[in-house]
Amino acid sequence: MQFVNVDRTAAYKRLQDYAEIAGKAFDFQSRLDAGRVEKCRTPMAAGLCYSWAAKAVDNEALKLLQALSDEQGLIAKYRALLNGEVINTGENRKVLHHLLRGEQGGPVIEGGKNIGEFYRKELDRFCTFAADVHAGKFKGSSGKPFSTAVQIGIGGSDLGPRALYLALENWAQAEGKKKLDARFISNVDPDDASAVIASVPLEQSLFILVSKSGTTQETLANELFVKDKLKKAGLDSAKHIVAVTSETSPLARNPAYLDSFYIDDYIGGRYSSSSAVGGCVLSLAFGPEAFRELLAGAAEADKLSLEPDILKNAALLDALIGVWERNFLGYPYTAVLPYSQALSRFPAHLQQLDMESNGKRVNREGEPVSYSTGPVVFGEPGTNGQHSFYQLLHQGTDIVPLQFIAFAGSQRSDDVTVDKSDSQTKLKANLAAQIVAFAKGRHDANRNKDFPGSRPSSLIYGKRLVPPALGALLAHFENKVMFQGFVWNVNSFDQEGVQLGKILTKKVLAGGSGDSALDAYSKMLGV
Amino acid sequence: MQFVNVDRTAAYKRLQDYAEIAGKAFDFQSRLDAGRVEKCRTPMAAGLCYSWAAKAVDNEALKLLQALSDEQGLIAKYRALLNGEVINTGENRKVLHHLLRGEQGGPVIEGGKNIGEFYRKELDRFCTFAADVHAGKFKGSSGKPFSTAVQIGIGGSDLGPRALYLALENWAQAEGKKKLDARFISNVDPDDASAVIASVPLEQSLFILVSKSGTTQETLANELFVKDKLKKAGLDSAKHIVAVTSETSPLARNPAYLDSFYIDDYIGGRYSSSSAVGGCVLSLAFGPEAFRELLAGAAEADKLSLEPDILKNAALLDALIGVWERNFLGYPYTAVLPYSQALSRFPAHLQQLDMESNGKRVNREGEPVSYSTGPVVFGEPGTNGQHSFYQLLHQGTDIVPLQFIAFAGSQRSDDVTVDKSDSQTKLKANLAAQIVAFAKGRHDANRNKDFPGSRPSSLIYGKRLVPPALGALLAHFENKVMFQGFVWNVNSFDQEGVQLGKILTKKVLAGGSGDSALDAYSKMLGV
Repeated sequence: MQFVNVDRTAAYKRLQDYAEIAGKAFDFQSRLDAGRVEKCRTPMAAGLCYSWAAKAVDNEALKLLQALSDEQGLIAKYRALLNGEVINTGENRKVLHHLLRGEQGGPVIEGGKNIGEFYRKELDRFCTFAADVHAGKFKGSSGKPFSTAVQIGIGGSDLGPRALYLALENWAQAEGKKKLDARFISNVDPDDASAVIASVPLEQSLFILVSKSGTTQETLANELFVKDKLKKAGLDSAKHIVAVTSETSPLARNPAYLDSFYIDDYIGGRYSSSSAVGGCVLSLAFGPEAFRELLAGAAEADKLSLEPDILKNAALLDALIGVWERNFLGYPYTAVLPYSQALSRFPAHLQQLDMESNGKRVNREGEPVSYSTGPVVFGEPGTNGQHSFYQLLHQGTDIVPLQFIAFAGSQRSDDVTVDKSDSQTKLKANLAAQIVAFAKGRHDANRNKDFPGSRPSSLIYGKRLVPPALGALLAHFENKVMFQGFVWNVNSFDQEGVQLGKILTKKVLAGGSGDSALDAYSKMLGV
Repeated sequence: MQFVNVDRTAAYKRLQDYAEIAGKAFDFQSRLDAGRVEKCRTPMAAGLCYSWAAKAVDNEALKLLQALSDEQGLIAKYRALLNGEVINTGENRKVLHHLLRGEQGGPVIEGGKNIGEFYRKELDRFCTFAADVHAGKFKGSSGKPFSTAVQIGIGGSDLGPRALYLALENWAQAEGKKKLDARFISNVDPDDASAVIASVPLEQSLFILVSKSGTTQETLANELFVKDKLKKAGLDSAKHIVAVTSETSPLARNPAYLDSFYIDDYIGGRYSSSSAVGGCVLSLAFGPEAFRELLAGAAEADKLSLEPDILKNAALLDALIGVWERNFLGYPYTAVLPYSQALSRFPAHLQQLDMESNGKRVNREGEPVSYSTGPVVFGEPGTNGQHSFYQLLHQGTDIVPLQFIAFAGSQRSDDVTVDKSDSQTKLKANLAAQIVAFAKGRHDANRNKDFPGSRPSSLIYGKRLVPPALGALLAHFENKVMFQGFVWNVNSFDQEGVQLGKILTKKVLAGGSGDSALDAYSKMLGV
């Protein structure tokens, strides 16, 4: 298995040439008709589908992207990852988040330990724990049942789990599956913890302390914050906190906690939603079955991602179209636009997933690359965004590629009919209209009202946002980002860019950094 | 007063030349010391300060930006706007949101009507209404006092008011000034309204229906949704809803509502937080005095924005440095990063404010421009972002200019000391460290751990996030965006880019668009 910079592949050079000759000029605006919409879609897991009719790719570009996929060995690299090869070479680690939801490769054994079995055991443990909490086996120290789970974590211990919780909250309420409320404390800003604590019934709150290393500054500060409040309320924190951490962390097997659930170094923070990091809070909130269904949807997506034909592999195709847009059409950003209020924080999760994984300027060997890697990712739900930043998307001086997500049915089935259509229908009609408006534009003699069109978008759609569909969506984007990392020959699984800030923060807190600017800023802020 | 495209000014050409000769190469990385931090800051209203020491501008660039400001007559245009000239020429409208918070120019009279007086009268009316609600003069139709205000609105009727509400909620709780909870319904996704309704005490809920035109599809659908729920609960909707609208809208003086408060066509949606659109919900939530203090902070900022010397006018300087970065250094985006959990949705407001105002490819006369206009704006609070997308900001292949915001003290004064520092100190130490890490980077023999630095940022800082400071912050960005629009010679006050989608949506809902692709997408989504 060879790791080479993408600009050294034959396919890359052919793509560059083709982009100049014809690719950039491909007029998808006038090609977009019912036939193209019908043809240009790829089934995904859990009944979802990826529609790419409104993307600026023609058959020749797709052929070349297939050649790029083959030449960079994207599927072979994915298989190697699944089989436990050390893909995160910078940190000398395997990358095993797929194994949390099923074995797509052979068993991964290390030092005699079957890691898949370890993950399954932890899954069973926290699922049992959640069921026990629901059954009233565990209660708060004053004897009241738990009504609220409060996750304390930051980054991947916050964004993914929070996005998934919000994505399923309405579904669970509508289905009568909501067991506990969940809240999240992440920021070291004390107003975050203070406000959350003030809003929950402390006696009935179960805290989930999440830090793989057990040394995350923000999370430890917030732990102490919470323990202080519990103590002042006369509650026993050891009966109100569970830990999610690695077996080697100071939080593991610690009598200060009711229980501990484990992950290991092969689960990166931003890929940890399928582990106890996401599973503990989701199982508590919606029941273990819902979380297992989510994992099943993700596992199905992981399996489909093994398909080498890019037209049959939505994650791979999405990844390669993204590369086409980033490296050959030159677009530096992507907007994620879910037409689903439940996915309000899903773009924030994808922002971390994508930008932290592929926002790298050196390749796997630490050599600076001479091409663009991960784009800026941002987004808000539609139709809200239509009344906000869509102005720039339609008529700005630059083109922003778009990624829409939508579902046929609502989660709560609670709707109202106004002017002969219900709100869910209006939501979908707006989305269909936007896709076509972005793609085709409209000429107007008043150029202020003129829409140039040719603004590409894709669409992931399904019947309803339920746990398997959410799992499939989660895995789709994880795998897309992984494939793009393989194309760009970067390590998508480390995050050295967070280290320098940590070092300088410690110096400031220790009383002086030796850097006059840093000291001046600290003084200015009143540190 | 002349309106010309910026690339036709002498200053623009000089800036282009200078950028190539020396400007792009300016090494702020090595210049950033205590002296530069001390020197490069500009006082703002309400005790805030704008620090631009870590921006990639040298004295020569600043001189040329001053020349650009003078040549484009930015202050003269601002004065004209204040005096009631028709600045929004596309829609033949004055632009008067400044007048909501004070008279910086002469009185604006139209058809014998003093518009400032009209605004003040409405301000008094909704302040009195809020006080009456607090005094129990108005109650729900079952006789219970109101405990919750629910704003129904989208775009500018949602993002700004919601961001400001969240920004002050903790402050109000800590100061004992919280009067009512507030919630927001915006999306036409029925799950949005359904979930909010399910979470509020309906008998004690006062709905604020906000639509300037009274014809916004989403807002009218959500109004009917709410009325249906009130009716089913046996409540009289006419005693539970107030309207915020224009005097000519179907919602005005309508017996279906408890009262109506008015704005006019001179208050753009994204600039309407200072009007009844923001003021009604904020006065209900925190008391009228808090809202008046917010307006006072904004008015002070508006006054400071009249200063022609760019080094003494923070909004103007921020605008021009943004132009330098966008047009001469070539950066297509800006990240807004508040180190304040209370500002969690402020970036979403700024995203609308900036991208909807200046995301334009034609000038005021409708002619396509040949330079870049408004950038993509995105952001999340620190320290959360540090554990997420900061990886790309530090080590990505592209440079993203940064805009930090921070306060010395927390809002709730509820903190915990861990390792000799409290959380608020950690928050600020992290920010100081990030600014310097972005600017200076750090060389490492392991290039995976190498930070190139030279990533520019600015910082707005103050003592505490209180109403006057929030008003100053709001006005700062409004005025920044306005000045940039004047530089680029675009109309920052219309939003034609939202129209095409509306037209196509209506066609879809009417049963067929005549466009085969649009019909195919509609069918695929199950419209």
